[in-house]
Amino acid sequence: MASARTLVLKHLHGRTSCYFNSVRSSRMVSIRAYSSKLSPPSKGVVYEQHGSPDEVTRVIDLPPVEIKENDVCVKMLASPINPSDINRIQGVYPVRPPLPAVGGYEGVGQVHDFGSAVKGLSIGDLVIPSPPSSGAWQTFVVKEESLWHKIDKDVPLEFASTVTVNPLTALLMLDDFVTLNPGDAIVQNGSTSIVGQCVIQLAKLRGVHSINIIRDRAGAEDVKERLKKLGADEVYTESQLEVKNVNGFLGALPEPALGFNCVGGNSASSVLKFLRQGGTMLTYGGMSKKPVTVSTSAFIFKDLTLRGFWLQNMMNSDRAVDCRVMIDYLLSLMRDRKLKYEMELVPFDEFPVALDKALGKLGSHPKQILKF
Amino acid sequence: MASARTLVLKHLHGRTSCYFNSVRSSRMVSIRAYSSKLSPPSKGVVYEQHGSPDEVTRVIDLPPVEIKENDVCVKMLASPINPSDINRIQGVYPVRPPLPAVGGYEGVGQVHDFGSAVKGLSIGDLVIPSPPSSGAWQTFVVKEESLWHKIDKDVPLEFASTVTVNPLTALLMLDDFVTLNPGDAIVQNGSTSIVGQCVIQLAKLRGVHSINIIRDRAGAEDVKERLKKLGADEVYTESQLEVKNVNGFLGALPEPALGFNCVGGNSASSVLKFLRQGGTMLTYGGMSKKPVTVSTSAFIFKDLTLRGFWLQNMMNSDRAVDCRVMIDYLLSLMRDRKLKYEMELVPFDEFPVALDKALGKLGSHPKQILKF
Repeated sequence: MASARTLVLKHLHGRTSCYFNSVRSSRMVSIRAYSSKLSPPSKGVVYEQHGSPDEVTRVIDLPPVEIKENDVCVKMLASPINPSDINRIQGVYPVRPPLPAVGGYEGVGQVHDFGSAVKGLSIGDLVIPSPPSSGAWQTFVVKEESLWHKIDKDVPLEFASTVTVNPLTALLMLDDFVTLNPGDAIVQNGSTSIVGQCVIQLAKLRGVHSINIIRDRAGAEDVKERLKKLGADEVYTESQLEVKNVNGFLGALPEPALGFNCVGGNSASSVLKFLRQGGTMLTYGGMSKKPVTVSTSAFIFKDLTLRGFWLQNMMNSDRAVDCRVMIDYLLSLMRDRKLKYEMELVPFDEFPVALDKALGKLGSHPKQILKF
Repeated sequence: MASARTLVLKHLHGRTSCYFNSVRSSRMVSIRAYSSKLSPPSKGVVYEQHGSPDEVTRVIDLPPVEIKENDVCVKMLASPINPSDINRIQGVYPVRPPLPAVGGYEGVGQVHDFGSAVKGLSIGDLVIPSPPSSGAWQTFVVKEESLWHKIDKDVPLEFASTVTVNPLTALLMLDDFVTLNPGDAIVQNGSTSIVGQCVIQLAKLRGVHSINIIRDRAGAEDVKERLKKLGADEVYTESQLEVKNVNGFLGALPEPALGFNCVGGNSASSVLKFLRQGGTMLTYGGMSKKPVTVSTSAFIFKDLTLRGFWLQNMMNSDRAVDCRVMIDYLLSLMRDRKLKYEMELVPFDEFPVALDKALGKLGSHPKQILKF
């Protein structure tokens, strides 16, 4: 531990820019110590190089950081381990925080302290980082006031900590690309993911039917029942759909106008087969690591549109201003138990076990939520 | 010949609907003969079943057809053999005229006669079928007045006969999907096709640069020179672009915002590699018979949009009303020699040879234009 920490600090002292104020602003300590407010010492999950998260991350003690006049110091309460957090540590994303970095991208915490110019928040307020950004896996996080969004205290912590990535992805994909009317249908694969479960519930609330594809697995019938209880109209395994024409699987539903793909390969092809003339498929993940393959005739005669969805792009667009309104809507659904999914709270001290579960090394587990 | 004709007529007499009034309206003869105007007897390329065009088509004599009060009888002057004509005969298109049918989809002709309610056309006027529709490969075509578009007599016949399919495709793809400004770039494969050559010239007229992909072939350097003379900025063979990153091939050009694919497979992947962040690729053909394959990261991180383009869809949309204006614009460019491509005029009597050339059975030949 001690040597890792020395390495981190040595590296940090060599930096001049300070975009991510989580780890790196600790360099301020040596320069301005005692001249202003400081956060408590923090404990965080740090990685100094990209690679397999179970090999490159370490939980280490981090020194206090300066709380500047517009900054808010938040005591983190809960933060999930998302697949995108793992991908960020692996270094597969094109935009990467400079290393070393603290892992984690979203979460929820309580206002612990703030700078002299902060007017909108009080000690004890519940806040989430919005837009989500690197550095959530530590006990104290210091960021500018504008980067924190105050939320309702009635929302269960584990839901508040997970609202800004997966549920918001589901909502934006449903609302931002194709106009759906009650009675319309959507189709998706990877339907047991948190995004998938949110899509089912949010579609149902809009009167939109959902056709859901899950991967073949032991207990598939139980999974189908569980998704139907959430509001899924139809649930099929990938192998059930390896047929030329899927019309027989529509049941009484109309052909879907919109499809969501987070798998790729044959599973993406099944989504495309369900789409109606002029339909759109959004790709937001590629769990099978296989590309999307589309026939010329599907483009020309079926007039399909294929696009990508990346939350980070939306956050950099003019939709970003609406996101907090959408987050409040999602939180209200969570508070009323109209939007739910299974999670497992794990003490922060047990991070390595939670990480192994998130990496799938210990069989199938619900979403892991670090509790600080 | 005689037996084929008998078969056709027998079949035609069994029909009641009459969407394509080329072959099928000949049934009227037996019902209303001598009650109204008739066209001269016609000679046409007829197919009674789908299949390889050199096996299923026959040039046969067709009886006179009735010219109803809103009909115009046109003596055809020229009509091309397009790849889409071949595909229609093969039966690969989802929308097919009922069989037997007369081949050909576009052309140019001269008004020969018309019904009593026709007000907008005179004998001798030069007209093209607009929208294009089945039945152009015959010496006399009878259609309603509204389906004929009168054109300027100064346009060379072979260009007038080919304006409504390939040049219009190029123009609509350039103008209808992405806003291009002077200085922007586009990328395309299949660049030696008529659509490809029109894209180069129309882009150049707009100050838009073109990056062009051609298939590997003997004489590739000559082809590159020829396309550059038309206005191409860069021309590469498919094998030149089988690299991970194509940025080195951009030269001084910006990354293209728009790409056109009529090949599929690796050639489509090369188009995608050139596209800029947020770029769009339109697929309008699949000459390699290979599908389009796209990585998940290209969708998500590069935010690509993939769509199809089918002229027939545009003709059924609200863009149809603008098409005649666009056709007149294209004809004016052709008249001024600002839009050109190589063609070979072939007497209609030599249809089988022209067809073999169009099918690629006799080596590489320019676009075949039947001259009646």
